[in-house]
Amino acid sequence: MNKIQMTETIINAKLSKAVSWESLAAEVGLDPVFLTSACLGMNSLKAEAAESLCRLLELPDSIATQLQQCPLKQWDQAVPTDPLIYRLYEIVGVYGGTIKELIHEKFGDGIMSAIDFSMNIEKEENPAGDRVKVTMNGKFLPYKSW
Amino acid sequence: MNKIQMTETIINAKLSKAVSWESLAAEVGLDPVFLTSACLGMNSLKAEAAESLCRLLELPDSIATQLQQCPLKQWDQAVPTDPLIYRLYEIVGVYGGTIKELIHEKFGDGIMSAIDFSMNIEKEENPAGDRVKVTMNGKFLPYKSW
Amino acid sequence: MNKIQMTETIINAKLSKAVSWESLAAEVGLDPVFLTSACLGMNSLKAEAAESLCRLLELPDSIATQLQQCPLKQWDQAVPTDPLIYRLYEIVGVYGGTIKELIHEKFGDGIMSAIDFSMNIEKEENPAGDRVKVTMNGKFLPYKSW
Amino acid sequence: MNKIQMTETIINAKLSKAVSWESLAAEVGLDPVFLTSACLGMNSLKAEAAESLCRLLELPDSIATQLQQCPLKQWDQAVPTDPLIYRLYEIVGVYGGTIKELIHEKFGDGIMSAIDFSMNIEKEENPAGDRVKVTMNGKFLPYKSW
Amino acid sequence: MNKIQMTETIINAKLSKAVSWESLAAEVGLDPVFLTSACLGMNSLKAEAAESLCRLLELPDSIATQLQQCPLKQWDQAVPTDPLIYRLYEIVGVYGGTIKELIHEKFGDGIMSAIDFSMNIEKEENPAGDRVKVTMNGKFLPYKSW
Amino acid sequence: MNKIQMTETIINAKLSKAVSWESLAAEVGLDPVFLTSACLGMNSLKAEAAESLCRLLELPDSIATQLQQCPLKQWDQAVPTDPLIYRLYEIVGVYGGTIKELIHEKFGDGIMSAIDFSMNIEKEENPAGDRVKVTMNGKFLPYKSW
Amino acid sequence: MNKIQMTETIINAKLSKAVSWESLAAEVGLDPVFLTSACLGMNSLKAEAAESLCRLLELPDSIATQLQQCPLKQWDQAVPTDPLIYRLYEIVGVYGGTIKELIHEKFGDGIMSAIDFSMNIEKEENPAGDRVKVTMNGKFLPYKSW
Amino acid sequence: MNKIQMTETIINAKLSKAVSWESLAAEVGLDPVFLTSACLGMNSLKAEAAESLCRLLELPDSIATQLQQCPLKQWDQAVPTDPLIYRLYEIVGVYGGTIKELIHEKFGDGIMSAIDFSMNIEKEENPAGDRVKVTMNGKFLPYKSW
Amino acid sequence: MNKIQMTETIINAKLSKAVSWESLAAEVGLDPVFLTSACLGMNSLKAEAAESLCRLLELPDSIATQLQQCPLKQWDQAVPTDPLIYRLYEIVGVYGGTIKELIHEKFGDGIMSAIDFSMNIEKEENPAGDRVKVTMNGKFLPYKSW
Amino acid sequence: MNKIQMTETIINAKLSKAVSWESLAAEVGLDPVFLTSACLGMNSLKAEAAESLCRLLELPDSIATQLQQCPLKQWDQAVPTDPLIYRLYEIVGVYGGTIKELIHEKFGDGIMSAIDFSMNIEKEENPAGDRVKVTMNGKFLPYKSW
Repeated sequence: MNKIQMTETIINAKLSKAVSWESLAAEVGLDPVFLTSACLGMNSLKAEAAESLCRLLELPDSIATQLQQCPLKQWDQAVPTDPLIYRLYEIVGVYGGTIKELIHEKFGDGIMSAIDFSMNIEKEENPAGDRVKVTMNGKFLPYKSW
Repeated sequence: MNKIQMTETIINAKLSKAVSWESLAAEVGLDPVFLTSACLGMNSLKAEAAESLCRLLELPDSIATQLQQCPLKQWDQAVPTDPLIYRLYEIVGVYGGTIKELIHEKFGDGIMSAIDFSMNIEKEENPAGDRVKVTMNGKFLPYKSW
Repeated sequence: MNKIQMTETIINAKLSKAVSWESLAAEVGLDPVFLTSACLGMNSLKAEAAESLCRLLELPDSIATQLQQCPLKQWDQAVPTDPLIYRLYEIVGVYGGTIKELIHEKFGDGIMSAIDFSMNIEKEENPAGDRVKVTMNGKFLPYKSW
Repeated sequence: MNKIQMTETIINAKLSKAVSWESLAAEVGLDPVFLTSACLGMNSLKAEAAESLCRLLELPDSIATQLQQCPLKQWDQAVPTDPLIYRLYEIVGVYGGTIKELIHEKFGDGIMSAIDFSMNIEKEENPAGDRVKVTMNGKFLPYKSW
Repeated sequence: MNKIQMTETIINAKLSKAVSWESLAAEVGLDPVFLTSACLGMNSLKAEAAESLCRLLELPDSIATQLQQCPLKQWDQAVPTDPLIYRLYEIVGVYGGTIKELIHEKFGDGIMSAIDFSMNIEKEENPAGDRVKVTMNGKFLPYKSW
Repeated sequence: MNKIQMTETIINAKLSKAVSWESLAAEVGLDPVFLTSACLGMNSLKAEAAESLCRLLELPDSIATQLQQCPLKQWDQAVPTDPLIYRLYEIVGVYGGTIKELIHEKFGDGIMSAIDFSMNIEKEENPAGDRVKVTMNGKFLPYKSW
Repeated sequence: MNKIQMTETIINAKLSKAVSWESLAAEVGLDPVFLTSACLGMNSLKAEAAESLCRLLELPDSIATQLQQCPLKQWDQAVPTDPLIYRLYEIVGVYGGTIKELIHEKFGDGIMSAIDFSMNIEKEENPAGDRVKVTMNGKFLPYKSW
Repeated sequence: MNKIQMTETIINAKLSKAVSWESLAAEVGLDPVFLTSACLGMNSLKAEAAESLCRLLELPDSIATQLQQCPLKQWDQAVPTDPLIYRLYEIVGVYGGTIKELIHEKFGDGIMSAIDFSMNIEKEENPAGDRVKVTMNGKFLPYKSW
Repeated sequence: MNKIQMTETIINAKLSKAVSWESLAAEVGLDPVFLTSACLGMNSLKAEAAESLCRLLELPDSIATQLQQCPLKQWDQAVPTDPLIYRLYEIVGVYGGTIKELIHEKFGDGIMSAIDFSMNIEKEENPAGDRVKVTMNGKFLPYKSW
Repeated sequence: MNKIQMTETIINAKLSKAVSWESLAAEVGLDPVFLTSACLGMNSLKAEAAESLCRLLELPDSIATQLQQCPLKQWDQAVPTDPLIYRLYEIVGVYGGTIKELIHEKFGDGIMSAIDFSMNIEKEENPAGDRVKVTMNGKFLPYKSW
């Protein structure tokens, strides 16, 4: 059992039970972004959440154990090709320098943490076409001077 | 005069006048993210905004003209090295698959536009350490079937 | 069952039935470009089209289900080596700057969508050698200012 | 004088005369795509067209000479970053395999030439948003067997 | 059955029959370069040649069918490492600019086709050490102006 | 004075005298491929040839000296983008394995030298379109066993 | 004035005054690693430290100003070639997985911060050859669950 | 049996016995960093240590034999993506030049060995958040002059 | 049977017989470098040597046959990561320009052959630490002028 | 004055005095490989050698100073293109695994140092063609266990 097999098992169970990430997350008591990322092998769950998810999807203990392992976070494509993911990459390319200017202006020298970090995704209904709203929230970490 | 010279001129003027992107944006009537991105050569301004900015910074007409040109958006580092910008890249790598799952779950097959798109950056005060809040808002574009 | 297995199954069925993409597309009621791209795992079909195709090729329901999944669009070669595909890449390299100049001249700052997009391919008979005609049609998306 | 200096000189003259590629092309008697590509250093002009263009823009003979040189066609970004040009690259990635299938189905083994090739760009007005129409037309070249 | 399996089957049959590419090509009535490239999955054969080869090597019809498919021409190493193949790559690097100068001098603006193309390889006996003679013959394709 | 400045000086002199590589080579007594490659900084000339060329083009001694230096042969694009040069690269990719098979069949284990090597380029007139003929001739070097 | 010019100016002043990083750091009241990194353009100094350094090296105010700017941290070589720096890269390659195992074992899921971070370098005298001792000290940041 | 299979076997045994790297290392008499790196296939053990580890984990002799083989040290990601490992890479990028300056200042021209090298990892408890302390200790190797 | 399977079979036989490359080479009558390189699939053996090696290691004829095939010499890592092999790569990077200067000074324009080439490796005992001595011997090949 | 300017100055002086690296090295009392590498900016000289060289070439003190600086050893081409240098790279690719096997067989686990290292280059006269002999001599460094 490794993270890749874990993800395949969870996705198959989710499809055959026809449940959404959102409803699973609500029952486990986590945000859908965090729960999904753990199921995709990009975060680890605490024991209680892992066991709760496995009860919901009727999965064996080995999945719950694997969900608690610290993942090795890897991706193969330095520049992602999937259009949905590429657009996020493009936003970093186009607006990265701008975000840097504005964070330094508001906070001083430092960065936004990607570890002490949360994100959520919302659907904003709009007659001219619905909109995706992605909110990122990360702790500001000032550079230490020593 | 090209976009690189334009950016250098604007940044020098901004430094010598000791004004912030935020205050410039408020006076021009645009969001600081959009105004900054245009000044860094990653977006174009409408004539009125370009002229307004040049009046505020006492810059010549050639800058206003250049601000209105459609930019060639280029970046050299496929993987950015600056830690602040890298963290954004890392978020795309770690959460890209998750965002894809959840947008498809909420909207069906399609993407979040990076063109019909806006973003803003806020400072969230917090006794455990202030937090950076980045909000992205893009139109959902369904794949056309033909 | 994943998209790669789906594609292999469809191509084998198509070969053994000796039908063309064009005739399959006509019967399903879609353009050959769109139908073929869905069969190659680069687009998703609506339920009706997926089921219609599977009836034509006598394929099981699992293929119809897989055809409706939102695909992860990936390609391995940043620069394609197959001569037919490379020529398209070369056209982007040689004419990309020109297309940018002319779209901005006709429409202003923005892009041609690759999502709200269709394409078709025709054979143009010509005594000096037949010609391939590729027509791309994408919505113009103006950059939003905010 | 080299191709890069030639392009800068032409673009400055075009801006100061406030003429469009389209009107220049009409006066020279070439398609705007071809004329623009030659001015950007990606094609060469015949003597008559080069001299005609230089008369229109009041440019010296050295520009006309340079326009007639066979260009070394180079681009630096294997994967282009500008969003407008990237979308074209993405179309090659997403639809390259599909185009290959359909050209082989219609013509047999061979390719669409990128040399005996023409392209044009049109604006298609549409109440739901104007559309960009790009038409490529290349000679089919069958693989020689020997 | 795919092109890779086809190649392995042909090479094993060729080894066990101890025949050379040259003799196979003579019997099939094609140049050894073309026949070998088709067997390595880099060209397609006409039905008659494919069937003739399969009779000679006592291979099943599925091989003859596969030999007629239009191949997806791919190579993994952008810079080849095998010394024999690298030397060819090096020749392109060292003499590419020279070949460009001389083709333009003799023919004008255009290229040598790699599709309407043939090549042959000869052994030139020489007391100071035998020599390899590689002759490439491609149609000159002038750039179209439109 | 370095090789790059040398090349620019020679090309300017050649243009202003309106002489061809072919006629220069005939007068110096070398093949046009070799002479051109030396002028482009990819080979060195013997003193006599260097001086002869400089007399013909009325160039100073420093050019003759530079032509005799052993060049550092460098190219920037691992995969060349110019269509004429790319086609040569593509031929190596498509036919590299085939050439390897046939050289080993004719000569045993070893390579074709790119150093003890010559090449020439001819125009083959043809009513169906003139053809480019490139002939490479390199010493076979067997792998030494020790 | 930019960070690159700032660094050149400081290094020249340091050489002509023949002072060491260590003595400069002691006088400014910072660790030599931090002071050096700021002078090389990889960290920013507080106003007091920047002014103190400029007094010591008799440098103009513009250097003190530049030292306080938030730097864009960039490096060109994804894999460094200088042997001293490469050895550090090699240590990350050889021991990265090991460090990951042990940090997770001691702390749980999370990372060592490279921002709330300090480092120092010492010389350890040893009759068998002196040794370099590098100590890194970074805050453990647990992954946030939400 | 190869190094990859060896690592999987050891990690499974370690998990089922629920022992830590630290306790294993203490019993074998090695530092946890060194023992872990050998188990991950990045160092070799002496016979006694290999056998001692296999007794503790009840593993067969083939594992002890494999632990003694000299490993081929390979990693696939030139730039690691796992955030914990990336931070180490980032430290090399940000501080590599600084470390070079200070080692040369203290020792003269040479490097810190990554072979005659040891490292240890400690947890530093801290009310403001525990800290990771990584200490590297490598022999200084002066460049030989000859 | 291919070269990779051949290498695995030989290495297993060598391990179970506990013989060294050096003793095998002595019995076969070749230098250990050449014999080892052939066993690793980077050179081919003559029939007699291949059969002699197979007798010594009690391997089947298929191994002897495979040892005689001309290998496709490939390596995956453009920059090797194993520290022992990287040091050789580093020597090429650091001293490549120097070797070029000195070979041209001693021999004129040309190269050292890597085909008509031999190498041997010796242990040089030394009280200050044993030393590795690698000797390369390649034919000088002058560039041909034509 | 930097290392690049230093190298240009030395090479110009060497050319105008028409002295060889070999004779310069003999007069300074160093091996030609080491002296040349220092002049090319890849090693540093002790004060005495630097001053001696500058006297011989009649160069100013600033060159002697620069020769003593610890160089930042960088190369741009991960895979070198110059044929002479590429052959050395190819030898590392073809024989790297073999050298690793034989060093481990003779010395145990460890590497050949590229720092405590020397190299020399000799011309071996041979009626069948002179040969280049390159001898590398590096200290064996065993991996430390801790």
